[in-house]
Amino acid sequence: MEPEPNPNPKEMDMASLSLREGEGEGGASISKSKAKKDAKKAEKAEKAAQRQQARSRPATATAAASESEEADPLSSNYGDIAVQDIQSKSISGRTWTRVKDLCADMKDQSVLIRGAAQVIRPVSKKMAFLVVRQSMSTVQCVLVVSKDAVSPHMVRFATSLSKESIVDVEGVISVPNEPIKGTSQQVEIQVRKLYCVNRAVPNLPFNIEDAARSETEFKKAEETGEQLVRVGQDTRLNYRVLDLRIPANQAIFRIQCQVENVFRQFLLSEDFVGIHSPKLIAGSSEGGAAVFKLDYKGQPACLAQSPQLYKQMTICGDFGRVFEVGPVFRAEDSYTHRHLCEFVGLDVEMEIKEHYFEVCDIVDRLFVAMFDHLNKNCSKELESINRQYPFQPLKYLPKTLRLTYDEGIQMLKEAGVEIEPMGDLNTEAEKKLGKLVSDKYNTDFYILTRYPLGIRPFYTMPCYDDPAYSNSFDVFIRGEEIISGAQRIHLPDLLTERAEKCGIDVNTISSYIDSFRYGAPPHGGFGVGLERVVMLFCGLNNIRKSSLFPRDPQRLTP
Amino acid sequence: MEPEPNPNPKEMDMASLSLREGEGEGGASISKSKAKKDAKKAEKAEKAAQRQQARSRPATATAAASESEEADPLSSNYGDIAVQDIQSKSISGRTWTRVKDLCADMKDQSVLIRGAAQVIRPVSKKMAFLVVRQSMSTVQCVLVVSKDAVSPHMVRFATSLSKESIVDVEGVISVPNEPIKGTSQQVEIQVRKLYCVNRAVPNLPFNIEDAARSETEFKKAEETGEQLVRVGQDTRLNYRVLDLRIPANQAIFRIQCQVENVFRQFLLSEDFVGIHSPKLIAGSSEGGAAVFKLDYKGQPACLAQSPQLYKQMTICGDFGRVFEVGPVFRAEDSYTHRHLCEFVGLDVEMEIKEHYFEVCDIVDRLFVAMFDHLNKNCSKELESINRQYPFQPLKYLPKTLRLTYDEGIQMLKEAGVEIEPMGDLNTEAEKKLGKLVSDKYNTDFYILTRYPLGIRPFYTMPCYDDPAYSNSFDVFIRGEEIISGAQRIHLPDLLTERAEKCGIDVNTISSYIDSFRYGAPPHGGFGVGLERVVMLFCGLNNIRKSSLFPRDPQRLTP
Repeated sequence: MEPEPNPNPKEMDMASLSLREGEGEGGASISKSKAKKDAKKAEKAEKAAQRQQARSRPATATAAASESEEADPLSSNYGDIAVQDIQSKSISGRTWTRVKDLCADMKDQSVLIRGAAQVIRPVSKKMAFLVVRQSMSTVQCVLVVSKDAVSPHMVRFATSLSKESIVDVEGVISVPNEPIKGTSQQVEIQVRKLYCVNRAVPNLPFNIEDAARSETEFKKAEETGEQLVRVGQDTRLNYRVLDLRIPANQAIFRIQCQVENVFRQFLLSEDFVGIHSPKLIAGSSEGGAAVFKLDYKGQPACLAQSPQLYKQMTICGDFGRVFEVGPVFRAEDSYTHRHLCEFVGLDVEMEIKEHYFEVCDIVDRLFVAMFDHLNKNCSKELESINRQYPFQPLKYLPKTLRLTYDEGIQMLKEAGVEIEPMGDLNTEAEKKLGKLVSDKYNTDFYILTRYPLGIRPFYTMPCYDDPAYSNSFDVFIRGEEIISGAQRIHLPDLLTERAEKCGIDVNTISSYIDSFRYGAPPHGGFGVGLERVVMLFCGLNNIRKSSLFPRDPQRLTP
Repeated sequence: MEPEPNPNPKEMDMASLSLREGEGEGGASISKSKAKKDAKKAEKAEKAAQRQQARSRPATATAAASESEEADPLSSNYGDIAVQDIQSKSISGRTWTRVKDLCADMKDQSVLIRGAAQVIRPVSKKMAFLVVRQSMSTVQCVLVVSKDAVSPHMVRFATSLSKESIVDVEGVISVPNEPIKGTSQQVEIQVRKLYCVNRAVPNLPFNIEDAARSETEFKKAEETGEQLVRVGQDTRLNYRVLDLRIPANQAIFRIQCQVENVFRQFLLSEDFVGIHSPKLIAGSSEGGAAVFKLDYKGQPACLAQSPQLYKQMTICGDFGRVFEVGPVFRAEDSYTHRHLCEFVGLDVEMEIKEHYFEVCDIVDRLFVAMFDHLNKNCSKELESINRQYPFQPLKYLPKTLRLTYDEGIQMLKEAGVEIEPMGDLNTEAEKKLGKLVSDKYNTDFYILTRYPLGIRPFYTMPCYDDPAYSNSFDVFIRGEEIISGAQRIHLPDLLTERAEKCGIDVNTISSYIDSFRYGAPPHGGFGVGLERVVMLFCGLNNIRKSSLFPRDPQRLTP
């Protein structure tokens, strides 16, 4: 994939490029002639900087548009950073402090931060506030006109910035007497220098504040009759880059990362090996119709609906215990709150010595460890989510409750819910059972075992005492399924028979079935949807909230 | 994906299923009538077991085929385990010891292990050896006829097992006076009980011993004129389940897991967030022709050639520093030793304050930490690989060498190698430069920076002082490229211009370009091929050796 070489690289006017951003957007106050002027200034300044090896300020910051610019002796303290200075020109050795690290202990220290100008609040010609955000943290920056640092021009420069522009702020930490509302950090920066690294367009698709409003705020506004903008799910997803900046989303995807990390670290500590199986496969991975098909160099191929067959083959390859984290593709026409066409599968497969409860034991200890970890180490993230989307903390037991399918059905019957005999639980019945279990056993997390064979995939091992049932289980959080697992059939002839009974063309899975002919240990495993775990642990109402760039039957972008 | 319900589940004869495996394979000695007999016996034994809650042996192990079975008072000490007993019937509470944990400290202890019968060596009617393997570990098991445990029938049962069958061995640890050749564990098990869990077909596609032979063995055999079977690469991949069992492969994929784990843990400790971006995308991810195309619910879609665009969008979404581990799809017609159509990408993207060397610093520290970790913690795995595929340990410096592209070209010129001006290095030139660098700087691992802009992707930031060059780098191990990285263009207008110059239809990447309009920080990153890192660290000659189930233009199975 080599791109065409630039036909005329020497003539590119790099300096003017950053300024073009504002053009046509109707908001940038910089004219073309001004741009050229700036570019020349930048060149000059660059040379000066090379001589001086200046270490205390960006070498070529150019003062903002201002008619009386020449007259401002403090003009070097602010301005737009020239393009060259963000093209890896030099390494100044300056230290940037992370916004999340700003604290009262740093009182009177000089700091340098980079972040997005989330709020820009002019107070007077001599004073302005800027709230600068970096990931989940925000800090209030104060500009007050002074003789040695801040000119009125500089205040004007600050207040003319477009929201979400990236800025470098240098200043001294102060600690106000009263708590600061609306920022995460309880200190202020008394600004001495302010440079704009990259300007945002002046008219954003929506405001970060609007997208970050909590349900509580909306309720209050309803009561008082105040009009608040509500940013819809589709708008959010269309402009995901903006939507991701709200604290709840920053928190959701940090929790997602932690869920995966606990999953991996727990399993590694239990002698599992992490693997990667192919997503491009011949035939359909589980025989269903909901596969994405494609042409693979002239051969018919499809995208794996799960790593099922491969993780089992790896067990037959003597790896003992394996796990995989990877994308899973389902071409289903599901428009529910909990289905995606592409999601992240957390998969486990392991030898079992005697009983598939050995797999349930791993599920039990893994998820209890995960929930403990999240509650202990992610309280800040959970608070951020709770602030916008209030939820009850997950109730779970130190030793996870196990019920059989029949016991579950019985509980539903007693509550007046009839289920088709030996049938699958629909979403409603699952919800209801979750409620019954929660009331009776005080847990939102439990395992339902011994499902009817007829409603499980062909490779599920039948029960020893009644082949109408299977050695299988599902796991539920808050009444919704997140895990499916089972003992697998490791006997090739039984596997063939079951595949045929389930209407699968055995030829398409012959290499899978053959894997069990060369000495295969009894084994079992399970699969988890990463987005579902995050959604349900955090009590979110839509899986699109826990998928970075969700894919459903109607959404393929961004 | 609900399979058809079993039409007649109650009549399934589960007991006979495991025995069918041998049928038609020409090697199993169990007749159908015998199978039925066994099934009845199994039922009886089951009931007995339920009464006794026997804890010291599988409840329904049935003695192996033997005419005089009834006459053997020790027949309960061996046999094929009934199917029911591996259908999660009961939990005995017995403890299985891992083969890798067997050591001289356990002398005279009774142990129970499960593994594959890799070697079966009859000595006489009264004695036999069995080498049992579990992942990378093997142990010698000795059967000697005795009054209280081992009958001649049991020895016959043992020697009639097919290689690679899964067995449970119970016995007492002994420590022989002389070192045991050919097994990893330096103890023996004096067998008292032996049960077959699942039989392998008697004629395997190839022998594990043949597949595990070292190049040294082949050389010796050539000298002595001995005929050794060499298992070819395609045969190995066709029967990957068997091939994976050899020690070198067990080691390769454990090292792969470690490489990924160090990658993740290092980055997490440096404030990176792990993300998952979609693999199904509209348009082509980097504008090249080598994309897999498919139909997505009536929309044209393709498989991501890299998470490039999405990881950058996440940076614009205020995540600061992100990484991703996931599949990458390239529909290229490359039949080389180092190209795959699907591989695992390790991707990094991060805000940079001033210079793309901040990204190089991460590469430097990350990979030095990784190599240190592998050398320190994976010596057993590296030895296993070295035994079969000898290689020199990787030479690397505590602080990674950086050269510019021009310096590299100059070194090649001085060595008489001519490169097309401002052109890419071909494989041969890379190899040669690797040799020159290794000789001059004593390192097999180095970073080459400041590549010509014309040979880098459209989103690469040009150099501040000469737009014919770019803020980019490649990283090499043993003269082969493993990493490509750069500062990215975060200015939407420059990005558009560069895309157009590179012949990309800007409409297909508009949501990507728009991401930079809402305030985007300067940033850079890199991508690594996981399989390449493993291949080159271990000095392997083919990337198919470090891919679990490789995909190339001709291979889509298994």
